[in-house]
Amino acid sequence: MARVLKAAASAAGFYFKHQTLVQAGRAFSTSQPLHQPDNPVWKVGRLNHVAIAVPDLPKTMAFYRNVMGAKVSEAVPLPEHGVSVSFVDLGNTKMELLHPLGDESPIEGFLKKHKAGGIHHICIEVDNIKAAVIELKKKKIRSLTEDTKIGAHGKPVIFLHPKDCGGVLVELEQV
Amino acid sequence: MARVLKAAASAAGFYFKHQTLVQAGRAFSTSQPLHQPDNPVWKVGRLNHVAIAVPDLPKTMAFYRNVMGAKVSEAVPLPEHGVSVSFVDLGNTKMELLHPLGDESPIEGFLKKHKAGGIHHICIEVDNIKAAVIELKKKKIRSLTEDTKIGAHGKPVIFLHPKDCGGVLVELEQV
Repeated sequence: MARVLKAAASAAGFYFKHQTLVQAGRAFSTSQPLHQPDNPVWKVGRLNHVAIAVPDLPKTMAFYRNVMGAKVSEAVPLPEHGVSVSFVDLGNTKMELLHPLGDESPIEGFLKKHKAGGIHHICIEVDNIKAAVIELKKKKIRSLTEDTKIGAHGKPVIFLHPKDCGGVLVELEQV
Repeated sequence: MARVLKAAASAAGFYFKHQTLVQAGRAFSTSQPLHQPDNPVWKVGRLNHVAIAVPDLPKTMAFYRNVMGAKVSEAVPLPEHGVSVSFVDLGNTKMELLHPLGDESPIEGFLKKHKAGGIHHICIEVDNIKAAVIELKKKKIRSLTEDTKIGAHGKPVIFLHPKDCGGVLVELEQV
């Protein structure tokens, strides 16, 4: 189990690569009140994005732009997250094409296992991520870190363990 | 390559399990004119769904319904496609939770490789799937069948080869 969690945490690591893990006992930010309500209020929202790790970013960008005719952004290097990213706009949601950047990219391991690329995670929006974290913990849904982190979009995110989500790495993002 | 195509075709087979493969030379339906325009007009649309194969359907349904608070449909058996399916409504798009049904479910093999479950494919809408098929063929994007099939939603669909789509099995669906 520890190995699985470590691997999943590594896979998701590009979202908070340079932040240290929050220790147990500091599970929630200091902005949270000491006494949480029993039933914190939060709602699940839209599918924010589907993240795809690809071995050849220009090739996949060209496929979605030139063959599929979708709106595809230029690739943006995010060295602090160890990836380059390009966004495919599908109108109702987007795909994020991720490619390793630098020597220690956290998606390098994923691409070693999935040489042709593959879906890395899905991201679902929530309106109150702190409340979500509290309830998920109560309901024994594991997350990869104790607390939320600031993700690549500048908003608080948390990754839930794939084994508790039907085999899928699920990111929750505050909207 | 043949083995990869066969495996991918098998994985996608639940969408057209009881239809025979269209032979080469009958790549397009007889409703197509003999002389196609050089640049058939079609546009890519929304992300219709993300399909997730799960080993324990009630458990994953309960996660999305009771923990995440999403709208989750009852499971629907689709014996002609070899799966039971439940829909998770995320507002802007949906997730389709798939579980094997019957002795020869086409997602059985996928779940043997991904015991905890995983994302099986994504489905993107197009407004003219016949034109899309023609252009994709010209641009050397492989598909798992020569022609479209009627999919689980009763609309024409075609699956594109993962190796031409950044490692992801991509379904196109006519809207």
